[in-house]
Amino acid sequence: MATINPYTISRDMYKEQRQRLSDTLKATGADDTVAVFLKGASDVPRNYSDTNFFFRQDSYLEYLFGYEVQDCFAAILPGSATSILFVSRMPEAHAVFMGPQPSLDFIKNASGVDEVHFVDEINKVFTDKGIKTIQVLSGINADSGLPMNTASFEGDSAFTIEKDTIYEMLSNQRVIKTQKEIELLTWINGVSSRAHIDVMQKCKPQMSQHQLEAMFSFHCFFHGGMRQMSYSCICATGNSCAVLHYPDNDKTIIDGQMALLDMGGEYHNYASDITCSFPVNGKFSDSQRIIYNAVLDAQMQVFRALKPGAKWLDMHMLALRVMAGHLLKNGFFTAEATVDIIMEKHIMRLFQPHGLGHLMGMEVHDVGGYPKGGSVRPTTPDAKGLRTTRVLEKGVCITVEPGMYFNQVLLTAAFADADIAKYLNEAKLREFWEFGGVRIEDDVIITDDGILNLTCCPRTVEEIEATMAGAPFTKAPEVISN
Amino acid sequence: MATINPYTISRDMYKEQRQRLSDTLKATGADDTVAVFLKGASDVPRNYSDTNFFFRQDSYLEYLFGYEVQDCFAAILPGSATSILFVSRMPEAHAVFMGPQPSLDFIKNASGVDEVHFVDEINKVFTDKGIKTIQVLSGINADSGLPMNTASFEGDSAFTIEKDTIYEMLSNQRVIKTQKEIELLTWINGVSSRAHIDVMQKCKPQMSQHQLEAMFSFHCFFHGGMRQMSYSCICATGNSCAVLHYPDNDKTIIDGQMALLDMGGEYHNYASDITCSFPVNGKFSDSQRIIYNAVLDAQMQVFRALKPGAKWLDMHMLALRVMAGHLLKNGFFTAEATVDIIMEKHIMRLFQPHGLGHLMGMEVHDVGGYPKGGSVRPTTPDAKGLRTTRVLEKGVCITVEPGMYFNQVLLTAAFADADIAKYLNEAKLREFWEFGGVRIEDDVIITDDGILNLTCCPRTVEEIEATMAGAPFTKAPEVISN
Repeated sequence: MATINPYTISRDMYKEQRQRLSDTLKATGADDTVAVFLKGASDVPRNYSDTNFFFRQDSYLEYLFGYEVQDCFAAILPGSATSILFVSRMPEAHAVFMGPQPSLDFIKNASGVDEVHFVDEINKVFTDKGIKTIQVLSGINADSGLPMNTASFEGDSAFTIEKDTIYEMLSNQRVIKTQKEIELLTWINGVSSRAHIDVMQKCKPQMSQHQLEAMFSFHCFFHGGMRQMSYSCICATGNSCAVLHYPDNDKTIIDGQMALLDMGGEYHNYASDITCSFPVNGKFSDSQRIIYNAVLDAQMQVFRALKPGAKWLDMHMLALRVMAGHLLKNGFFTAEATVDIIMEKHIMRLFQPHGLGHLMGMEVHDVGGYPKGGSVRPTTPDAKGLRTTRVLEKGVCITVEPGMYFNQVLLTAAFADADIAKYLNEAKLREFWEFGGVRIEDDVIITDDGILNLTCCPRTVEEIEATMAGAPFTKAPEVISN
Repeated sequence: MATINPYTISRDMYKEQRQRLSDTLKATGADDTVAVFLKGASDVPRNYSDTNFFFRQDSYLEYLFGYEVQDCFAAILPGSATSILFVSRMPEAHAVFMGPQPSLDFIKNASGVDEVHFVDEINKVFTDKGIKTIQVLSGINADSGLPMNTASFEGDSAFTIEKDTIYEMLSNQRVIKTQKEIELLTWINGVSSRAHIDVMQKCKPQMSQHQLEAMFSFHCFFHGGMRQMSYSCICATGNSCAVLHYPDNDKTIIDGQMALLDMGGEYHNYASDITCSFPVNGKFSDSQRIIYNAVLDAQMQVFRALKPGAKWLDMHMLALRVMAGHLLKNGFFTAEATVDIIMEKHIMRLFQPHGLGHLMGMEVHDVGGYPKGGSVRPTTPDAKGLRTTRVLEKGVCITVEPGMYFNQVLLTAAFADADIAKYLNEAKLREFWEFGGVRIEDDVIITDDGILNLTCCPRTVEEIEATMAGAPFTKAPEVISN
């Protein structure tokens, strides 16, 4: 219960991120008359009540300014390398209920921006600085299908509003992490990894799934200051492990089941996204070991193939192929099947109905997955779930999360499809009807010649069994050169 | 770490709540052609991303149906005493990501309603049953100023839509709790009280405020299955105790400070709302004891005055008057001041700039505070913050939360106001400039002749000091007859 010091993010990280954007804009000809203009998020009420959901800043503004206050705007003037925050004027009641509003000077010093003004001064500030063109974010988030929070202000019709540049430019920039971002993501992953280990060591049959979530989020918050998780914790056991985003976390944990825990802490919008799968009683059965090692082998083979230039779609297909080989070897397919046939017939979509992984950063499913003019979303049944098909570059942060599930809905439909059913050993698959599934998910950074694996959880069967028996487990982020 | 059994809410609680509404409607002449029609809540994305805030069901629908699934509708037909849920049809991908959709029969049995249909069948169901008039919720939440989530459906223009009845009727019903609701609220308050005690016993100087929140929410979740809190936890220490809804919870706790912790767990929308104030090092200083006992005296005197027929505005003024007496006795006012003058000049608004308490139920600031035709919001400076001025009735659930704060913004303004400043002992008040404040908040139910106090936390100086020194503290909900 000693003092803890959550990670202090250097204001220089945000400054560098603003500088990168300014440099790119200047390289495309932006001059002193151009301003990038962003809108921060507002509080969102829980339905129509006067309690709000926990405030989450707009990630584009947060990425450039690291300023987590409601209803602000921000601008970057690439010509003069000027950064500006516009804050709302607070009524007196704000001081009584939420605390006194800091002075503009205080905000300037704390945030490290060049200027701070009130929101009602936006027009005057732009006019005084000779701004003619306002670059705003406009686009559709590829994962949610929702439109951006495009900024506007009273009087903006007197300016040229340019909507076609910044969204793609900034999303692409966010894909490539700086050294400072990598250090932060490493720390977040470290805290979240230790939280997973803590849960793994305390998990026992007869507990409730929700208690695993409670222990994980407590560890991240108490020890890491992470007040929110990156996404709703998935604490599946037994056949609910086959539900990819299992939301309930309310069942009793039964001896003999697998657990699949997909959970990650969030820190100033930056995410972690880690999945551990393990037997709830601490000892793998033979069946559990077969499925687990198939998934782990897929992950390891992908780790040994990842480096700049590698295509994410190829990595995805590699993982499916490795797992197909394990399923074949262990009798899940009929004598008619080969790995090539399984792949040609897209049969692995039954066992891993999701992509191998996704970009990660200030959103758990980060922006930039399908940039304009880049590769497009595949349409084949076993790859259409991919959230990106980028060619990997140094600095990309991506999750590697192969999984193998026995989804009763998908398999039941497959048994009824003669063209697929003939390759499936239905009797064997029905032995695994209540198995659920296994997913193993680490977060990695692409380096010059391979990866830095930020996730530090027990991964082999032996490591997991020893850790769950009470042995301490520590591991540094692993560097793999390929 | 044994199995826990969060409280099982009887489906009869919701059935009784539907029956009460039907009875009231029938008493006003509703016949077989009338249906009450409600809309459930949808998921709310975190900004435009594909992660959502934690789902919270619409409280009116939840109150009547206890059904926590997105995008549903519900109806009550008072004439035939029929309850109906309308659920969305889920696409195949839903089974893969969120789990298979339960059958309509399963939902019917689990929820205890009479019929379950799909949302696209609403029009047909109403037509087949001969419904002519659809009663929908329409109104403005008095605390947030936000409009209700009014239900509609394709083809509803063929029906008479009645908007003027249900909102007031149902809000008034929600104010008066049933025995089953009281039992549930008692349990929620018990878990939250024990969580407060746990935090009180673990709080130490040099911890961070956020660690107090982490311990509280962990206790409520792990031991009570409360995945969300009723509102954002307020973990103030030192002068931030004067900020009523202090949102930051990120400062180091300093020896010698007071802590003011306003936190409550939420269970299936039902709230708790408890504030404990205590010295962070476990021992009250003389100054801390004076302020604390002034607030406790106010709470105790209100407890001894509460019963059916008591006016909430009178209770509020009583608390202010009691605290004014303590401030006078302890030299915070000048020789010119008397309690009567302090009250006449509304000076207590400086020290308690909020109402004495508020209705509590499925919202922490519950509906029904200012019913149509009932008493109106006061305009006097020391009472305008009241969220209700009802005459109390048996079954009302209300918080009793007197507070005394040294708010630098309010006091600075008062020192500059000659008409007020002459009654204030500025020198004495400046000795308390960094004190912050004290709030003591319990949740009570109005009984036949007094109250049932649901909150079971240490309240006297002696109880708090003993508990923080490690003594176990247990207390049953207290009955007070007046």
